[in-house]
Amino acid sequence: MRHLLTLEDLQRDEITRLLDAAQALRPHALRRSAHRPLRGLTVANLFFEPSTRTRASFQLAAERLGADVLNFETESSSTRKGETLVDTLRNLEAMGASLFVVRHTHSSVPASLAAAAAPASGVISAGDGHHSHPTQGLLDMLTIRQHKGEDFSRLKVAIVGDIRHSRVARSDAQALRALGVRDLRLAAPEALLPDRSDPSFAGAQVAGTLDAALDGCDVVMMLRLQRERMDEGLVASLEEYYRDWGLSPERLALARPDAIVLHPGPMNRGVEIADAVADGPQSVILEQVSNGVAVRMAVLERLARR
Amino acid sequence: MRHLLTLEDLQRDEITRLLDAAQALRPHALRRSAHRPLRGLTVANLFFEPSTRTRASFQLAAERLGADVLNFETESSSTRKGETLVDTLRNLEAMGASLFVVRHTHSSVPASLAAAAAPASGVISAGDGHHSHPTQGLLDMLTIRQHKGEDFSRLKVAIVGDIRHSRVARSDAQALRALGVRDLRLAAPEALLPDRSDPSFAGAQVAGTLDAALDGCDVVMMLRLQRERMDEGLVASLEEYYRDWGLSPERLALARPDAIVLHPGPMNRGVEIADAVADGPQSVILEQVSNGVAVRMAVLERLARR
Amino acid sequence: MRHLLTLEDLQRDEITRLLDAAQALRPHALRRSAHRPLRGLTVANLFFEPSTRTRASFQLAAERLGADVLNFETESSSTRKGETLVDTLRNLEAMGASLFVVRHTHSSVPASLAAAAAPASGVISAGDGHHSHPTQGLLDMLTIRQHKGEDFSRLKVAIVGDIRHSRVARSDAQALRALGVRDLRLAAPEALLPDRSDPSFAGAQVAGTLDAALDGCDVVMMLRLQRERMDEGLVASLEEYYRDWGLSPERLALARPDAIVLHPGPMNRGVEIADAVADGPQSVILEQVSNGVAVRMAVLERLARR
Repeated sequence: MRHLLTLEDLQRDEITRLLDAAQALRPHALRRSAHRPLRGLTVANLFFEPSTRTRASFQLAAERLGADVLNFETESSSTRKGETLVDTLRNLEAMGASLFVVRHTHSSVPASLAAAAAPASGVISAGDGHHSHPTQGLLDMLTIRQHKGEDFSRLKVAIVGDIRHSRVARSDAQALRALGVRDLRLAAPEALLPDRSDPSFAGAQVAGTLDAALDGCDVVMMLRLQRERMDEGLVASLEEYYRDWGLSPERLALARPDAIVLHPGPMNRGVEIADAVADGPQSVILEQVSNGVAVRMAVLERLARR
Repeated sequence: MRHLLTLEDLQRDEITRLLDAAQALRPHALRRSAHRPLRGLTVANLFFEPSTRTRASFQLAAERLGADVLNFETESSSTRKGETLVDTLRNLEAMGASLFVVRHTHSSVPASLAAAAAPASGVISAGDGHHSHPTQGLLDMLTIRQHKGEDFSRLKVAIVGDIRHSRVARSDAQALRALGVRDLRLAAPEALLPDRSDPSFAGAQVAGTLDAALDGCDVVMMLRLQRERMDEGLVASLEEYYRDWGLSPERLALARPDAIVLHPGPMNRGVEIADAVADGPQSVILEQVSNGVAVRMAVLERLARR
Repeated sequence: MRHLLTLEDLQRDEITRLLDAAQALRPHALRRSAHRPLRGLTVANLFFEPSTRTRASFQLAAERLGADVLNFETESSSTRKGETLVDTLRNLEAMGASLFVVRHTHSSVPASLAAAAAPASGVISAGDGHHSHPTQGLLDMLTIRQHKGEDFSRLKVAIVGDIRHSRVARSDAQALRALGVRDLRLAAPEALLPDRSDPSFAGAQVAGTLDAALDGCDVVMMLRLQRERMDEGLVASLEEYYRDWGLSPERLALARPDAIVLHPGPMNRGVEIADAVADGPQSVILEQVSNGVAVRMAVLERLARR
C-alpha cells in the first residue's frame, strides 16, 4: 500500500490487516512509548480545512511513532501566494517529509498530490470533499469489531443523517461491504440521501423513516448535520430535523438492546443526537476517538514500511 | 491538588510548597535537561484568547518536563463548528491528553471543563475572564520572595491600574493575603476600582492617588491598561491616564529605595509605565517571565503526580 | 558571527566556511539523526509575514540539530495587543530562547531586534522587507557551487524579474560578488529595475532584454513576480510579462547548454517561468529547497557556537 486515499478498492484482507495492526498498537497509542518505528521520518499535516480532532489525532499518531511533524493550516500557507499544492508537496519532500496527511474541501486533492508525489512518499486522505475519509472508516470498523466481533456478515447497520454530503458515510459503507455487511440501511430526509447511482452505497436500502432504519439494528452510525444545509434549503429547521431524524433514547430503544451508537464528531447535540444518547451506555463515540489514534498509527507505519 | 483554577482557596502551606518546587526547578526551566518526569504525558494548550507569552511559557514548561504538547488556538478549533468545549476536552482525553491549560474570555470555562474532566485529568486556568490567573499570581509571589524573603507580613504592596477588570490583580491579592501581606493598597481611577464587595480584595485599602499608594512601598504591581477601556468611556485618554496613574521614575522615588516593580505584560509603555521604570534597576519584569516557566513546571508536575 | 542579518559585509572566507559547513551537514539535513549539537537550546521562529517553506525549513533545521522550537505567526502574537517587538524578544529570552529567526515586511526589524538582544542571543533574518534574505542567498550559492565548482570568477549569472523589490536578489548579488562573480546581468522591465545607486548591485550590468541577459549564461536566477505589482501599475498584465520576461524553454536555449535555473519559490508558473523549465532537466529548484535546510542548520549551529 503506497497511499491511503479511499477504502473503495480495499479488500477484506487488507482492511483486516490494518485493523489488526491498529489493535496491536493500542498500548502505544495514548502515550509516547519506546516503540518508535518512524524515528527520523517527517510527517506533514496539510490541512486546508479547519479541524481540531483529526489534525490532533494524526499529530499524536505520528509523534507516538517517533516521527517529526510539520503542521500546515490554510492561513499560514504559501497557497495564499498562489503556489500550487503540488509545488508545496514537492517542496516539503525536498525538505525531507515523506508522509503527507491531506485534508481539503475538494475531493480530488489528495489523489492529485499522490499522483505527483515522489516514489518514496505516501499520501493519506484525512477527509476530502464529500468523497472519502478512509481513516475514519477504519476506526469505525475497529470500534464495531471490538464490540461485535470479527463476523460482520450478520450485522444490521444503519447510517443516519446527511449521507449525501458525507465522506464519512461513503468510507463507512465501502468498508462495511468489504467486511461482509449485507443489511445496511440509509436513513435521511429525501434531500440528504445519496444518488441512487452512487456506487459507495450499492446494496444498501433506503429506510423511509428513522424508526424503520433502527428496527433491530446492531450498529447505529449517526452523521453530523452541517448547518449550511439549512442555508441551502435542504433542511427546514434544526427542531424539525431533530424531531424526524434525531436519535433520542426512545428511538434508540427500537434497536437491539446491545446496539452501539457511533458519531464521527463534532456532534451537534440536540440536532442529530440527544445528550442522553451521546453520553449514554450505548455510545462508543469516545472509543472511536481513541481508536482513531491507533488506526492512524497503523496506517502511517504501513505506508512508511512498504 | 487536582486542578488549579484559582488561588482563592489555597492556604499558605500549599502556595509555599508550589513556590519551593518552582524554585527547585529553576535549573531545568530555561533549557531542556535530563529531568523529564512528564515523559509520556500529553499536555493540551487550549487557548481561546490570543496570547504570546503565556502559551509559549506553558508550552516550554511542559516540553522541558518531557511532555508532548498539543496547541490549540481559537481559529483552528472545532468550536467553530459548534462543538461544545466539553466535547473538545473529552475528545482530547480520549486521545491521551491528561493535562489541560485553558485560557478563555469567560471566567467560568476552566471550572466547567474541570467539572467535566475525567478523574485522571487536571485543568489549569491560564487566565479566564476577569476572574483568575493563578500561575501569574504564583510567579509574582515567587519573584517577590526572591527579592524580599519568606516573611511577607511586613511588606507594603501596591496594585496599580485597571484592578476592576484584572484577573492578575485578583490572583495576586488572594496570594498576597494567604502569604500574610497586611498592607495592600489599590490605586486606580474610580471607574477601574473593584466593587467594595469583591472578596478578592478584602482587607485592601483604596489609595486616592498613585502617590499615596506608592508611599514607602516595598512592592509595586502595575497592571496593563486595555485600550478598550477608552472605547468604554472608563478612561479619558492615554495621556491623562499616564499623568495620573502612570509609573514614572519620579513617582517610583516615593516608594522605598529597594522597592521592586512588577508588570504581568504585555506592557503599554508610556501608558501605565515609563520606559525608564520598565527597563530600570528596580524592574523585575523579565525575572517574572523566567519564573513563569518554573512555576508552570511546578504546577504541571504537581497535577501529574497527585 | 553573532547575528546573520545580511550578506552585505560577509567576506568570501566567511561565506565559504558557511557553505562548507552546510555541505557537511547534508547527511543530517533531511532526517533527524544522532547529530544534535543544539540539544537544550530553544529557537524562536518569529514570522510576521506568512510563509510556508521558510518557516518549515527553519523549524526542521532547528529540530534536526536537536533544538526545541517555538513558532509564532502574526495572528497569535501579543503584538496585536500593542507590545513592542523588542519586548516580545526579551520575553522569549527570559523564557530561555536564544536564537531568533525573524521575518517581517519592514526591513529594519531584524536589525532592531539584534541591537536589543541579550549578549547570548543571535538573530537571523528570514527575509525583511526588500532588504535582505541571507539564508536564501547562501543556499543559492551552495546550489551553484554544487553544479559549477568553487571558482565563481568565470561564471556568467543573470538575475531576472522584479529585482527592485527583491530581498532575494539583493542577498544573491552581494554573495555572488563576494565569491568573485564579475559578469552579473540584471534583466527586468524598467519599473522593476533597482536604483542605479543601489550598492547591492554595484558592478552589475542591466540587460535591455531577457535574451541579452541569457546569452551564454551559466546560471539563471529567476525571481517571483508579486501580483501586487500589477495593482501598482508596474506591470501591465501577466501575459505581457511572460511574453517579455518569462523563462520559456526556447529562451533558456540561449544560455549555455549546462546552465542551471534557480527560483526562490513560490513560483508563479506561466508568469515568470514555464512549466517545462521549472520541471525540466536544468532546473535546480528543488535542490535549492533541500540545500536550504542544510544552510539553515549551518547558520544556527554557527550562531549557537560562537
